[in-house]
Amino acid sequence: MSQSNTCGSATRSWTTRRDAKQKRLQKVKGLADGCIIPTEKCVEALEKLISPGDRVVLEGDNQKQASFLSTSLTQVDPNKINMLHMIMSSISRPEHLSIFEQGIAEKIDFSYAGPQSLRIAQMIEDGTLKMGGIHTYLELFGRLFVDLIPNVALVAADKADTEGNLYTGPNTEETPAIVEATAFRDGIVIVQVNELVDDLPRIDIPGSWVDFVIEADKPYQLEALFTRDPRHITEIQILMAMMAIRGVYEKHHVQSLNHGIGFNTAAIELLLPTYGESLGLKGDICKHWTLNPHPTLIPAIESGWIDSVHCFGGEVGMEKYVAARPDVFFTGRDGSLRSNRAMSQVAGQYAVDLFIGSTLQMDSNGNSSTVTSGRLSGFGGAPNMGHDPRGRRHSTPAWLDMITEDDPLARGKKLVVQMVETYQAGNVPVFVESLDAIKVGKEAELSTAPVMIYGDDVTHIITEEGVAYLYKAQSLEERRQAIAAVAGVTPIGLKSSPKQTETLRRKGLVALPQDLSIRRTDAKRSLLAAKSVEDLVDWSGGLYNPPAKFRSW
Amino acid sequence: MSQSNTCGSATRSWTTRRDAKQKRLQKVKGLADGCIIPTEKCVEALEKLISPGDRVVLEGDNQKQASFLSTSLTQVDPNKINMLHMIMSSISRPEHLSIFEQGIAEKIDFSYAGPQSLRIAQMIEDGTLKMGGIHTYLELFGRLFVDLIPNVALVAADKADTEGNLYTGPNTEETPAIVEATAFRDGIVIVQVNELVDDLPRIDIPGSWVDFVIEADKPYQLEALFTRDPRHITEIQILMAMMAIRGVYEKHHVQSLNHGIGFNTAAIELLLPTYGESLGLKGDICKHWTLNPHPTLIPAIESGWIDSVHCFGGEVGMEKYVAARPDVFFTGRDGSLRSNRAMSQVAGQYAVDLFIGSTLQMDSNGNSSTVTSGRLSGFGGAPNMGHDPRGRRHSTPAWLDMITEDDPLARGKKLVVQMVETYQAGNVPVFVESLDAIKVGKEAELSTAPVMIYGDDVTHIITEEGVAYLYKAQSLEERRQAIAAVAGVTPIGLKSSPKQTETLRRKGLVALPQDLSIRRTDAKRSLLAAKSVEDLVDWSGGLYNPPAKFRSW
Repeated sequence: MSQSNTCGSATRSWTTRRDAKQKRLQKVKGLADGCIIPTEKCVEALEKLISPGDRVVLEGDNQKQASFLSTSLTQVDPNKINMLHMIMSSISRPEHLSIFEQGIAEKIDFSYAGPQSLRIAQMIEDGTLKMGGIHTYLELFGRLFVDLIPNVALVAADKADTEGNLYTGPNTEETPAIVEATAFRDGIVIVQVNELVDDLPRIDIPGSWVDFVIEADKPYQLEALFTRDPRHITEIQILMAMMAIRGVYEKHHVQSLNHGIGFNTAAIELLLPTYGESLGLKGDICKHWTLNPHPTLIPAIESGWIDSVHCFGGEVGMEKYVAARPDVFFTGRDGSLRSNRAMSQVAGQYAVDLFIGSTLQMDSNGNSSTVTSGRLSGFGGAPNMGHDPRGRRHSTPAWLDMITEDDPLARGKKLVVQMVETYQAGNVPVFVESLDAIKVGKEAELSTAPVMIYGDDVTHIITEEGVAYLYKAQSLEERRQAIAAVAGVTPIGLKSSPKQTETLRRKGLVALPQDLSIRRTDAKRSLLAAKSVEDLVDWSGGLYNPPAKFRSW
Repeated sequence: MSQSNTCGSATRSWTTRRDAKQKRLQKVKGLADGCIIPTEKCVEALEKLISPGDRVVLEGDNQKQASFLSTSLTQVDPNKINMLHMIMSSISRPEHLSIFEQGIAEKIDFSYAGPQSLRIAQMIEDGTLKMGGIHTYLELFGRLFVDLIPNVALVAADKADTEGNLYTGPNTEETPAIVEATAFRDGIVIVQVNELVDDLPRIDIPGSWVDFVIEADKPYQLEALFTRDPRHITEIQILMAMMAIRGVYEKHHVQSLNHGIGFNTAAIELLLPTYGESLGLKGDICKHWTLNPHPTLIPAIESGWIDSVHCFGGEVGMEKYVAARPDVFFTGRDGSLRSNRAMSQVAGQYAVDLFIGSTLQMDSNGNSSTVTSGRLSGFGGAPNMGHDPRGRRHSTPAWLDMITEDDPLARGKKLVVQMVETYQAGNVPVFVESLDAIKVGKEAELSTAPVMIYGDDVTHIITEEGVAYLYKAQSLEERRQAIAAVAGVTPIGLKSSPKQTETLRRKGLVALPQDLSIRRTDAKRSLLAAKSVEDLVDWSGGLYNPPAKFRSW
């Protein structure tokens, strides 16, 4: 055998990461009491525990933010801590980008940047920030175990005990995935908690995975992102929701699904106990869900439509309601919600019949993006759930229904539905010749254009004009025709002709409302099971406690 | 708002699962001491904790088996416990199927059935067993949170303390995923442990997720599945491994990857420190891995090739070696390996450049399956890692290298490589006109044929004849020609002609060994960094402790 064996082993240490960690831990000996770092010592501790050039994963789901730690990070001395490579699911808070302007951080890998999308695009152009990659959440979690292994994790939990055991409560979110990748690779796990207690309601993350706990000056930021006030649901959205229920859910027997954020899908949720009930669909469709606990799902739950809901994260105000419905939601022994972003994304990818979402732009082939001129928003979970997971091998009626060819090796497809009005507010067409994403991608020097969902993954498009059954298209040309047929008076829609639409309807590639026995005039707000947030509270028997901004009574 | 609110809430309980669990827990009050059930009371406890028709998830990874619990399950009274719906990653042990013959269980959802593949096919034909679905592992884990939520989980851990905290040690595997889905849905979690202790080396699963712990009569079954004795690596395999390194890894700058079980990939691992080194590739390729701790990876690790390895599970005999190499492996505070099947499958799906595997049959379009006549083997992780994850949005050099079109929306692809000799042992051709899977699928009344990897996901095929670069094919016809060109003298290969092969070589669709500057006569066993298990032990400085069956000295 080769001589390099003795040679290699003799000359190198195999514990450089562990040794580096021990050195850092030594530095804070005087600061910490066991694993507890005093609130006012946070900045000092970060300066001792983080090193220049570190990969730092900072928890920012789109709802739950390690806001005390991110604020503290802006206060470290850039002469001591710099060139950080930040990994963040969501760039949501101003300081998430300020650390780049301050010279503390220099590179970013992320998933979603909604509120900061304009600023991040500008900073890339200015060279203030180096782009790593844009990811769907699950992909980013995967890289934490491969080539983006963190040196330091900054995360948030509800409570901790003095041994560092963590209670994440309803908002477990991505915390376990981040902590695991860091803790088991000799990284340093620092947790801000709302409260230090003697006894935890339950343990979500064991103390042996945690290095330090810091009681935050105020509770971590938590946004009510999945709350849609039924008051703002329009009759066009109700019409589209009726088409979704009739033309997609009923037609294909959709039993398990994910809904995104949005008024379109909120309308569907609120039509199940009314319109859905009138069609006799209860028990046949929409039984198993992967989604956050949407308040607009309450009437369907109360009416007995829903067997199970697994959640990515929680929703502000839904805590008591969820805790009172353990037959529907995943809950812990303490009675409160157990969410898990990583496992729910796995479920939403591989185990559901349908994803339905919306977008800001779609091209003539059905490619879509929420990245529009000057805004680099990223995509969150949409690419993960809005594609056909080709590793899937089990079948369900909906999945099998997507088979159009007579091939012994034919397989089904996940239903990927895009539900959009042909025009956005301000008379901006959704259907466009070319996605802004191409230009934005070039400007940011991305290797590929930031497409959210690729056209060849989309099986259905629903607009106020009708439903396009893209999975039936036999050619790219036919796919384009079907898209044009439901694209209204946008530049893409104007390429369609009544005669062509007629042909597509006959072939079953396009359905207009009347083809689904839906009268446009029936699409009334009176069909909504709840017409306001107050109605939702009523449905919940007072268990739903909406944040102040949604209260109008 | 609707009246159905009051109506629905008044007439139903929302805690039926929780109440049912409490009733069952009451039944074993006399049996258990806290969460501890005495070994000899296991069967009795199972009879009280499981109900007819339950969904029971039984841990059987392909290596680690909850063997005491599965044996105990065969001893319950079928008059009390029957019609169980079993969910199992791997059907590995005889009793996994005996419970169906005994009338205890009736339906199965699974991922892999290697050792029992013949028997399961027969039992389906006989009607002894009802098939749910075949899944890739991650897909099955996803369904545990959606429509296969378990009532009972039967799992295995190394140690537990009296509070039910679990130490899974190097073989964490799928235990956390199974336990989470069960525990947070008011299911019952029963764990067999090798040992009850006062203090755990670390906590892998918190006690508040666990209902009962039973000390097993003997340690759980653990197979050394990923150990390949270098002695059995042939020169044909070495030739193919050289082509993989030159023609795929070097050509596309493959930095992160997954290797399956097999002598082909073991050969690659053993050539990195010799042939790979001679090409100057160290540091350029094969830095980040998702795979079990293969003993044949030791020389590459010792030679400094490997930056990181994240593991699905452990490997018998590798415990000390892994614990001594924390710079490479994920380890816990106790120093031993931390594996996690679910997260490693996520990483292997979304975060690596390349999957390389083997198969038993491949058709003219590149579709492949290990399901062959009369054997319903399932696929384990291969479909998950052996497909192009269309949700991926980050880019790497290898991924970008798969782009062949000049489209502003073009994206890269995961490299999915099939490495097969054209004939199996016994003169059975691997390349066939039609997969046996079609016939087996029909006989078992599966909704789709059990294909392991679909041809349109395969980017490269390596045989002893050469490399086919399928990602470059512009048409199905060209893809078929490239496959035929490397299919040797199989029925598929005989469709090729020297002239056609010449054309394909010119276009870069096929490379023969000489095109890669590889001389067939150089493919010698002397190139292997280790030629025996004893050599691997030497490379490890005595840290690798192979099981007796691999010892020949």
